[in-house]
Amino acid sequence: VKPIAIRGKPIAGGKVPLICAPLVARTRDALMAEAQVVLRAKPDVVEWRVDFFSKPGQVVDTARALKSALGATPLLFTRRSPSEGGEASDLDAAEVVSLYEAVCEARCAELVDFEMGNPAGDVEKVVVAANRSGIATVLSYHNFRETPPVSMLAERFATAQELGGEVAKVAVMPKSMDDVLVLLGATLKGSQTLRIPVISMSMGALGSLTRMLGWAFGSALTFGIGASGSAPGQVSIEDLEAVIALARKAMQRG
Amino acid sequence: VKPIAIRGKPIAGGKVPLICAPLVARTRDALMAEAQVVLRAKPDVVEWRVDFFSKPGQVVDTARALKSALGATPLLFTRRSPSEGGEASDLDAAEVVSLYEAVCEARCAELVDFEMGNPAGDVEKVVVAANRSGIATVLSYHNFRETPPVSMLAERFATAQELGGEVAKVAVMPKSMDDVLVLLGATLKGSQTLRIPVISMSMGALGSLTRMLGWAFGSALTFGIGASGSAPGQVSIEDLEAVIALARKAMQRG
Repeated sequence: VKPIAIRGKPIAGGKVPLICAPLVARTRDALMAEAQVVLRAKPDVVEWRVDFFSKPGQVVDTARALKSALGATPLLFTRRSPSEGGEASDLDAAEVVSLYEAVCEARCAELVDFEMGNPAGDVEKVVVAANRSGIATVLSYHNFRETPPVSMLAERFATAQELGGEVAKVAVMPKSMDDVLVLLGATLKGSQTLRIPVISMSMGALGSLTRMLGWAFGSALTFGIGASGSAPGQVSIEDLEAVIALARKAMQRG
Repeated sequence: VKPIAIRGKPIAGGKVPLICAPLVARTRDALMAEAQVVLRAKPDVVEWRVDFFSKPGQVVDTARALKSALGATPLLFTRRSPSEGGEASDLDAAEVVSLYEAVCEARCAELVDFEMGNPAGDVEKVVVAANRSGIATVLSYHNFRETPPVSMLAERFATAQELGGEVAKVAVMPKSMDDVLVLLGATLKGSQTLRIPVISMSMGALGSLTRMLGWAFGSALTFGIGASGSAPGQVSIEDLEAVIALARKAMQRG
């Protein structure tokens, strides 16, 4: 598994998988309180799902305060669009890009997640802004309806790399355990063929195993609940860590 | 997952997966002591790997004593051949069949495992002897060198059913995590297409995840260490139960 790095330095010393806790508060006070709760679970990365946040005009200031509160724990800034599972939003595409540019310019995050389904010009703008500030870009694809075939998932992983992402992320919904195997197979292939690290998960109840064990198939990071979940199938950081430790012990023992 | 039953009654009330602890002692005294250790871990089934046992002439008497010591815990009687990962043996094929027939006639096991790679006539004899005594037959296939393709594994599962097995078992060695996905895919397919329950595992370090989570892909039973392991990649019953409980919680929560 390729480690996720910030300015060349692997996060958490190259630990696999990284555990990332989402923040989903709607107000600044609630967000700062949520961050304190989440930090107690000692995540490797904290993701601010800014689409849950109710004050677009206060995002940069709030991100700055959040980054300060997180100390050494890297912040992943993510505005998930409604079409890929995010909260409803009044922002248009240009405003979203401006938000990312402002956050990058203010250097108040270590990573940003941007959906590669956005227009190519927008993706390029975000990648450029992130690169300029030494921020790592996660280029992502989410499908809450189904699990596309391996060939399509492989194409998504490859596209993230081609568009200049430093991390490729794919999250899809399974309808069966066969779909879970499709996601794991695509992850394995992506992690073997790409130069950049990959993150993947099969969502929902059926897919929850991939949140626990996707690292064994090449996924560099998994999302776990510190305070509140942000997507279906997420499990607590405590449970994630317990399963990961037992599985690693088994795989090292043989 | 179809439950494994004895005379129509699902073992452990249909619990999925069943956990089976192997016994690998060489002498009767050591075997009886090993059984006591193993019972403390409360396995659902105990397997006597009789190929480890040094006194072929004392097998039936010893099986009787073992069954008595196990009380309500069902006994799986298994003589693994050297070609499928068992201990070296002086018994010829006819002697092995006679051993199974004697154990069946004495009704000192609830299940017997016989390799479907044996001559068809031998398989038939063991199935007939087991059926006559109300003993469930596990027809098995082991490959310690590699993981054959899904089509070949599917054929092995189907053959176990065709030959009259009440359970189909496939255990193979992975060379990569791709092979682990092949085994899980074949298990899923077998569990969906066969009338009988299936047991599967990918062996060794890489495959140990399948011992923990194969049930999510249709495997009805997993082997866990109560006292000593009998095949590569086995993990302790304690660790198995911890992972299974956490994974089930995640899959039920969604």
